[in-house]
Amino acid sequence: MTTTRSVEFYFDFGSPASYLAATQLPHLCADTGAELVWKPMLLGGVFQATGNQSPAAIPAKGPYVFEDLARFARRYGVPLQQNPYFPINTLLLMRGATGMQMREPERFRAYVDAVYHAMWVEPRNLNDPATLAAALAEAGFDPATMIALANAQEVKDRLKAQTEEAVRRGVFGAPTMFVGDQMFWGQDRLDFVREALGA
Amino acid sequence: MTTTRSVEFYFDFGSPASYLAATQLPHLCADTGAELVWKPMLLGGVFQATGNQSPAAIPAKGPYVFEDLARFARRYGVPLQQNPYFPINTLLLMRGATGMQMREPERFRAYVDAVYHAMWVEPRNLNDPATLAAALAEAGFDPATMIALANAQEVKDRLKAQTEEAVRRGVFGAPTMFVGDQMFWGQDRLDFVREALGA
Repeated sequence: MTTTRSVEFYFDFGSPASYLAATQLPHLCADTGAELVWKPMLLGGVFQATGNQSPAAIPAKGPYVFEDLARFARRYGVPLQQNPYFPINTLLLMRGATGMQMREPERFRAYVDAVYHAMWVEPRNLNDPATLAAALAEAGFDPATMIALANAQEVKDRLKAQTEEAVRRGVFGAPTMFVGDQMFWGQDRLDFVREALGA
Repeated sequence: MTTTRSVEFYFDFGSPASYLAATQLPHLCADTGAELVWKPMLLGGVFQATGNQSPAAIPAKGPYVFEDLARFARRYGVPLQQNPYFPINTLLLMRGATGMQMREPERFRAYVDAVYHAMWVEPRNLNDPATLAAALAEAGFDPATMIALANAQEVKDRLKAQTEEAVRRGVFGAPTMFVGDQMFWGQDRLDFVREALGA
């Protein structure tokens, strides 16, 4: 049993469903005594490798999917706003998450929370370097240090490797959770994740 | 309140998620005192109109999506088998459903249950006319009468009109349920349907 008492959580900041999952998984794991393993990946790379695409690419689907996420946000009691600046390139942001995990793991969650807040709660145009710098600074992160971290070769390589790992394991979208070998796609499968943990 | 005490259920026999919804909606509606309004549509026509596609079109997604449906089938306690003969053209089958609604509504549910059983429980190759005829005959339907019914012009027109109506209302996949103006896509949204009924 001990081998499956963790949840591996593949996420990208550009996915509002990943944001919703990120609001729920910490207490789901706390409730069940499972370890939450954050796995930054580049969703754009996953889409490129699998041929999958954002639901927003289908005109009739995009608005529905956001309304559906808004229903879950109300159920969870968490804020969610559509980000009007989409698409936002998340490469730098995901490299930042990867770099924080490698170099400053104790501040990783604060970074994740700050970026998700700027992306799906405020929401801001994180394509704009000055806006991103301001969001980071307000959350206590030095923008220049963060950019240098995101541009470190080992950080770039790690994000690329982790995205490739996700694709190899069958990931085609975000969020994707693993409990052992069992894969669960979507923030709407957290009840199955809980069941898989035996809780 | 009375205006929203019904669930309009757009479905296609080719969708295993629609099959699962069809196993649950009758008792959900019975529990909540809502009327279940069956709305046959041609999913292929919806895909053509919206640019959406089957999840099976993405190689990494198809197997996962079926495993996900199998998890729900276990949760619901209903049988589900992958149909190895896919893709199956459902035009004749959906015309049959439409025709039964128009001409023999008292046997509509028996027809729907028979086709879903042949498609997702046994499962059979319903592309093959002899196999389809056998499945219908075993369920007490005369195959020649059913084919004549499916080929009646008013039946063809009605299915086409209902599919166009679905697209106009925002449908892009199956199953889709409406409670008043609220749209819900997927057999995994039945809890939201129940909430929308105020139950």
